[in-house]
Amino acid sequence: MSRAFLQRNNTASNRQMIIASMPNGPLQPSNFQLQVQSDMQELKDGEVRLKTLAITIGAGQRAGLQGSASYLANKPGDAQVMNGTGVGTVVESKDMNFKVGDVVMGGGGWQEFATLPGKALTKVPPGVDPAMQLGLLGTNGLTAYFGLLDIGMPKAGETVLVSAASGSVGHIVGQIAKIKGCYVVGTAGSDEKCQRLIDELGFDQAINYKSDDFRNLLKAATPKKIDVYFDNTGGKILQSALFRMNTFGRIVCCGNVSQYDTSTPGGGPKGVPGMLVNNQVKMQGFIVYSYAKQYEHARQEMVGWANEGKLVGWSTEYQGMERAPHAFIDMLNGVTKGTTIVRF
Amino acid sequence: MSRAFLQRNNTASNRQMIIASMPNGPLQPSNFQLQVQSDMQELKDGEVRLKTLAITIGAGQRAGLQGSASYLANKPGDAQVMNGTGVGTVVESKDMNFKVGDVVMGGGGWQEFATLPGKALTKVPPGVDPAMQLGLLGTNGLTAYFGLLDIGMPKAGETVLVSAASGSVGHIVGQIAKIKGCYVVGTAGSDEKCQRLIDELGFDQAINYKSDDFRNLLKAATPKKIDVYFDNTGGKILQSALFRMNTFGRIVCCGNVSQYDTSTPGGGPKGVPGMLVNNQVKMQGFIVYSYAKQYEHARQEMVGWANEGKLVGWSTEYQGMERAPHAFIDMLNGVTKGTTIVRF
Repeated sequence: MSRAFLQRNNTASNRQMIIASMPNGPLQPSNFQLQVQSDMQELKDGEVRLKTLAITIGAGQRAGLQGSASYLANKPGDAQVMNGTGVGTVVESKDMNFKVGDVVMGGGGWQEFATLPGKALTKVPPGVDPAMQLGLLGTNGLTAYFGLLDIGMPKAGETVLVSAASGSVGHIVGQIAKIKGCYVVGTAGSDEKCQRLIDELGFDQAINYKSDDFRNLLKAATPKKIDVYFDNTGGKILQSALFRMNTFGRIVCCGNVSQYDTSTPGGGPKGVPGMLVNNQVKMQGFIVYSYAKQYEHARQEMVGWANEGKLVGWSTEYQGMERAPHAFIDMLNGVTKGTTIVRF
Repeated sequence: MSRAFLQRNNTASNRQMIIASMPNGPLQPSNFQLQVQSDMQELKDGEVRLKTLAITIGAGQRAGLQGSASYLANKPGDAQVMNGTGVGTVVESKDMNFKVGDVVMGGGGWQEFATLPGKALTKVPPGVDPAMQLGLLGTNGLTAYFGLLDIGMPKAGETVLVSAASGSVGHIVGQIAKIKGCYVVGTAGSDEKCQRLIDELGFDQAINYKSDDFRNLLKAATPKKIDVYFDNTGGKILQSALFRMNTFGRIVCCGNVSQYDTSTPGGGPKGVPGMLVNNQVKMQGFIVYSYAKQYEHARQEMVGWANEGKLVGWSTEYQGMERAPHAFIDMLNGVTKGTTIVRF
């Protein structure tokens, strides 16, 4: 009896979190449902099966549930497993590059066992915790790195504003901007988060975007106005930032989380295109996957910063795949900090 | 008696078009008033006085009358002469680089005699008509050239959309895009203008933006979607274009004319920032003056294209400075084509 066959026996049933319905308004637990898959197919050549150790949940995944053209559109239907990136242990492999026991990262979705082409997997170095792999070294860290450095192009002494600054991408953006010698201002949804950004991550200023007086607070926090705005939220923060940009400022369009958890997104920001013209501002969207060829270089640089103590990865963790919908909703409601992780 | 003194005697009175009131809603003739200045001051060292031959009027000047921070904000007050660029003949000079009789271009405003520092003037080559100097070789042509080539970066075979395509900047943008081998689509405000864009300037398609079915017409006219959108208008054309951009598309933010002739500009375009992220689109504003060091190169290239018959300058002309307000209103209402010129 082959080892592969033994392993496959262990995976005869597979717990999966499926999309039970499309959200109509804010996301609800009832939009998801746990099901058991009892008939996993045999691996094809080149495929790898992994047992999920942990997944990460990002705000962009909510956009995928709006049913519109979105960058991670998942075309939900009957029994569609919720998508998502995770780390798992290889339990069976028909790809010679992976052997049973390897720890890998890939887009396996919210399920106990995921079957993926080996070429879609990245090996996780020994000793690296899933939260680190999925946070600093995963899509969040890479998104922060390439968005800020390639599109934002911050120079020492410039002012960098980042929204959702205590979020999965934002908290890394702010730290990299500090490493680059910038004056860094973050926005977050509570005074406690703001204080932690300053105390723990070295932000120069942080503003609670829920303050009635947000625009004036933003003005006071950016005495030299804004050179780079890393926008994770869209909405009113984007609109306020548009009227505060310096000449030749850059707005990095990374996400639009203020408009995700709704069926009726609001209008666009005033100031587009007028303020872009007046101040010669660039506004540019990006998707991190376009930088895939440069991932390794970025990871090496970020590991270096982490080892020097300049870059810290925040995460908020949940235990048990059945809690993934709850973690997702918490994240959308601003309850979590840093990378949202669900350990299986 | 010096020659300078003789000349100054000739200019003892100066007809000026002043801003009588800020427009409240669409611009009105009554927002302007003709006055006679009887006491022109003596020139200071470095100054030049010119007798205006012609002025050009651009849509951006309307934004300056909104009283907000605008790129040609003119801080109107009592007896503020309406600003604007023109061509004139030097009648008196205290700048050794200019002599009486030289024809020059500069921002003299709407007045019979303008006094400017010599360093703010550009000599007009002999034989170049003011309409050519103020159109193809003036701010309009340079705006089209740098906006399209430096920010739009069109490649042969790509689809370029330009709004206000029969306007002062737009008709030049479309022709340069054709020279660069692009598939060129314009929008304009009448079927007659659209036909002329195709017949006279070689546009591949032109769409009347007032059509009820504009979005579908745009879709049909851009079978390969849009790579570069040169936006002179903002508003609904921008919003439609945002949902039609190809991956890595570029939106050149040049103007926002749909929002100029009003006291209550509309909201921003839906699709910002969402569609910028989804399609990794860049949207960038610019002001042509940032390219001043490259003007001569651009003019030489455009003169070359004009001499080869590849680039034609359209203009709509009015006679008499008292007709300048009327010309301005016509231009804002889409009555004019190409560069709007008022000959004095």
